[in-house]
Amino acid sequence: MDLNYPNGLKKDNINNSTITTYNNRGMSLEEDINQTNEYYLIEDIAIIYKKPTPIKITKVDYPSRSEAKIKEAFFKEPSTTDYNGLYKGFYIDFEAKETKNKTAFSLDNIHPHQIKHLKNIYNHGGIAFLIVRFTTLGETYLLYSKDFLDFLDTEKRKSIPIDYFREKGYIIKEGYRPRIDYIKIIDNLLEVYKCEKKG
Amino acid sequence: MDLNYPNGLKKDNINNSTITTYNNRGMSLEEDINQTNEYYLIEDIAIIYKKPTPIKITKVDYPSRSEAKIKEAFFKEPSTTDYNGLYKGFYIDFEAKETKNKTAFSLDNIHPHQIKHLKNIYNHGGIAFLIVRFTTLGETYLLYSKDFLDFLDTEKRKSIPIDYFREKGYIIKEGYRPRIDYIKIIDNLLEVYKCEKKG
Repeated sequence: MDLNYPNGLKKDNINNSTITTYNNRGMSLEEDINQTNEYYLIEDIAIIYKKPTPIKITKVDYPSRSEAKIKEAFFKEPSTTDYNGLYKGFYIDFEAKETKNKTAFSLDNIHPHQIKHLKNIYNHGGIAFLIVRFTTLGETYLLYSKDFLDFLDTEKRKSIPIDYFREKGYIIKEGYRPRIDYIKIIDNLLEVYKCEKKG
Repeated sequence: MDLNYPNGLKKDNINNSTITTYNNRGMSLEEDINQTNEYYLIEDIAIIYKKPTPIKITKVDYPSRSEAKIKEAFFKEPSTTDYNGLYKGFYIDFEAKETKNKTAFSLDNIHPHQIKHLKNIYNHGGIAFLIVRFTTLGETYLLYSKDFLDFLDTEKRKSIPIDYFREKGYIIKEGYRPRIDYIKIIDNLLEVYKCEKKG
């Protein structure tokens, strides 16, 4: 569990010692997604935000009405995914993770309630997925919730092999602007989704 | 701006001195909505969450890998609304506010970027709205984004009179479980929405 080291606050990041071996100008997946979402927002393509990190506040100082200062707080385990929003009238929901592993993505990276959440979203007609970056390989995949849930239902393994991503997932190419144009893949999924709804 | 006193952290609440004159067992609108959302989740009706309060963390202590403690942080102004989620395949997005005023709802309660966000959601086919409770009157209204935006476009006033809510909004009755069944009103809006899309 990285409960106590949420995205963007890992000790490595704070010490500026993050080493990125993939070719994207030293940007983390989170930074890539945030910049991409900003691009989508500016270009009026989609409205997708990262949710704030959930925090339990235990002490607050109110020196004056205009300055409240949090003196003690703790990171809470997220109950949902990191990102959600709206694209072409569809509800979008996803979790993004990086792994240094070259052969598989460990399921320890996704909390059980996050899996439940993705399942919920899928069942209620939302577009849910994972974005997983294999940093050492320099490969980033979008794995649609249905394929992710199918894996969990049929496999007993504690990790998803890279080949499953290569077969079932969609590779996301890295660019300049937007950095990772995952919404293009959603267009694809929407087609599949509509077909399923019709059928 | 109540930037420094976000929901659930107002000084009044901390001192337990909140006085509620409306008949709902002393619950705040936020508590009512949270309990309602929990009910929707348990009953598998809708998946709607309150976003965590956005916080800027400036100092963190890492006494060990498993315990990170935030030593200094500040409340940030929210860039979007407080609640979003999914209902019947539709993207839902809303802001909830209470006012003690008996005659009008001041527009100071809604930040300009929140207005922009609601407009964005409306334009991209999401179901956006405000839930406003006039605590002194004991009346809670759902005001659809279109009617809210129409008001802003046509009126120069800095507050929305209660009569506008009574005329254009939908009153939300308070109950036991769920406490405020706002999703019923969404069904209504979805009808309107479909009509608009068809037309």
